[in-house]
Amino acid sequence: MAVNTNSRMHAGNGLEGISIGPSEICFVDGENGQLIYRGHDAEVLVREHTFDEVAFLLWTGHLPSVDETNELREIVFDNMRKVAAEPATVATLDPNALTMDAVRSAMSVWSMGRKLAEGGTPADAQAALGAIAGSVALLGARRAGVTPGDIQPGDTIARAYLRIMTGAEPTDAQVGALDAYLVLTAEHGMNASTFTGRVIVSTASDIGSGLVGSIGALKGKLHGGAPSHVSSMIDEIGTADNAEPWLRAKIEGGERLMGFGHRVYKTYDPRARALGEVAERLGSDDERLGLARHVEQTALRLLHEYKPDQRLYTNVEYYAAAVLETIELDPGLYTPTFAVSRTAGWTAHMLEQINYPRLIRPQVEYVGPMPEK
Amino acid sequence: MAVNTNSRMHAGNGLEGISIGPSEICFVDGENGQLIYRGHDAEVLVREHTFDEVAFLLWTGHLPSVDETNELREIVFDNMRKVAAEPATVATLDPNALTMDAVRSAMSVWSMGRKLAEGGTPADAQAALGAIAGSVALLGARRAGVTPGDIQPGDTIARAYLRIMTGAEPTDAQVGALDAYLVLTAEHGMNASTFTGRVIVSTASDIGSGLVGSIGALKGKLHGGAPSHVSSMIDEIGTADNAEPWLRAKIEGGERLMGFGHRVYKTYDPRARALGEVAERLGSDDERLGLARHVEQTALRLLHEYKPDQRLYTNVEYYAAAVLETIELDPGLYTPTFAVSRTAGWTAHMLEQINYPRLIRPQVEYVGPMPEK
Repeated sequence: MAVNTNSRMHAGNGLEGISIGPSEICFVDGENGQLIYRGHDAEVLVREHTFDEVAFLLWTGHLPSVDETNELREIVFDNMRKVAAEPATVATLDPNALTMDAVRSAMSVWSMGRKLAEGGTPADAQAALGAIAGSVALLGARRAGVTPGDIQPGDTIARAYLRIMTGAEPTDAQVGALDAYLVLTAEHGMNASTFTGRVIVSTASDIGSGLVGSIGALKGKLHGGAPSHVSSMIDEIGTADNAEPWLRAKIEGGERLMGFGHRVYKTYDPRARALGEVAERLGSDDERLGLARHVEQTALRLLHEYKPDQRLYTNVEYYAAAVLETIELDPGLYTPTFAVSRTAGWTAHMLEQINYPRLIRPQVEYVGPMPEK
Repeated sequence: MAVNTNSRMHAGNGLEGISIGPSEICFVDGENGQLIYRGHDAEVLVREHTFDEVAFLLWTGHLPSVDETNELREIVFDNMRKVAAEPATVATLDPNALTMDAVRSAMSVWSMGRKLAEGGTPADAQAALGAIAGSVALLGARRAGVTPGDIQPGDTIARAYLRIMTGAEPTDAQVGALDAYLVLTAEHGMNASTFTGRVIVSTASDIGSGLVGSIGALKGKLHGGAPSHVSSMIDEIGTADNAEPWLRAKIEGGERLMGFGHRVYKTYDPRARALGEVAERLGSDDERLGLARHVEQTALRLLHEYKPDQRLYTNVEYYAAAVLETIELDPGLYTPTFAVSRTAGWTAHMLEQINYPRLIRPQVEYVGPMPEK
């Protein structure tokens, strides 16, 4: 039987190193450990701006004025309230479901209510951010069995999110920590979930379909599923004394350490550095954070000892876990909260793709049999 | 401001000609106008086998025995009945929604009920086919305001689908026509929706998330949305005399004719040929089909006259519309019915990707500004 091919080039390695085209949104500088959103260093943005302003920046290319921020919040909060008032959407937020399945279903049903046949606008992106933030916050309240809180005048998205989810007034430190997490995970170039959204809207489908696809991709543990694994690892290690033997056994057994190594960063992940500082400010007396720091130092020493050529450093998930733990977020909501922040980046990319209307459609190399002649 | 790039290769044209790797499922021979499923010519399969058997072939690589076909039908029918009995799934099948939004939501909610954390098996693919066939059939019944029919012993998937949807006993000719449509649209290599599903499961997400993403991609008019546009075009033309002036005006106005031209086929689309034969058998006295044939011949003559270099031929959508019209399918269900057939191909590709666990993650070339130093 003949083997045929209809491919003219062959990547065969997950499209690594293949560019889908130009983008003005994000530059991930893996060699220098720098993350740029629309010309702004994310490590600077996280000190000087809220997630609300950074989402605006990702969509438009410029930081918002005070009026623009207020208008954005009005739309986001309006949509956060609306999802809670839509029985069809709320029905999908089953506290016993896999959380990412619930969020995916909520956004599909919410989007169905909008009847968007194709494409999408910045207003749709803002509405989507409100809808997913409102849905995940409500899911959190339902899982915790608390009455959702109400959004208050002067709230940021992070504060409103915690208020709905916990039914209580969050502390400034909690709000600041969550806001920093949201800023630092809002966008990261052409990862699998962002790419999924771009492929979907490249068919002239709508931004809601793209969002639902992106959520499905982020569900996978190779992409969005790791921060709670870092928490589990630190739980398992338990004490400082146990760190070195535990980590040696894992490395010698050929297992990957959660929270270390990155496909792009060949140096310390700038998001881990910034989130480490946030965790430090939040919980400087915290025993748990002390253990996390000790596990990190031990892991870096051992990775250098066993794999000196691989340039393995701490990645964003390691300190994302530390920060999300410190604000006492339900581990089942780590990945959904990541979906909330990344909705800013996803929708920015979808808007860019919508302006560049061309099907994304690679090929495969057929290696199966051919019919007998 | 500096311009930076992190891409090592640059496609920039929708990944055209880039292969994502080897696949044993489908060979689309665009030069010779041949479509191969797992070593079998689709034009032969459509004459000798049902969609049920072809779906099995796509999943497993071999045609089923009688016992295997019966087992497959049992699983598919069981899932067709189950979705109708799940209030949460049925609630999403809103007859007033955009139909693809309803199907996307139904499959998301259905999949949530299965709690599949990652991956998927052939049994999951069979269940998914039953769930989507049952959902679309039920949506059809709700849109028509009829009481859904019951699946009967000896039914094929096509017969069960029409029975649920119309509440009546379909004719053998209708069943045969739908079955041929399902066989010929079950799989077509690396199109945008199939690629979406593969990207999603490449993160170790689950087959349900992949399916929901694929549905979202198929919603786009550049991909799944055209058969009903062919019907509208023939409606607008109205009479044979009007065909030439109408088509000339469109071509001279720079518009694309619906149902002609294909990215891969540079000759007559083999699916159009096979579906044209089906339409001929179904409605040989039919005035509408006569008009469609006349419009086709006129369009091909004019396309050759105006664009002799472009090798534009009739594509699958042209005769898909003719066949789906002849069985009196609600045009709002053309693309959802395409989603049912393509679920066989989508899930076959997802199963293949699950066995090849590597993130699909290309790059973009950053062309935005850099921070001031």
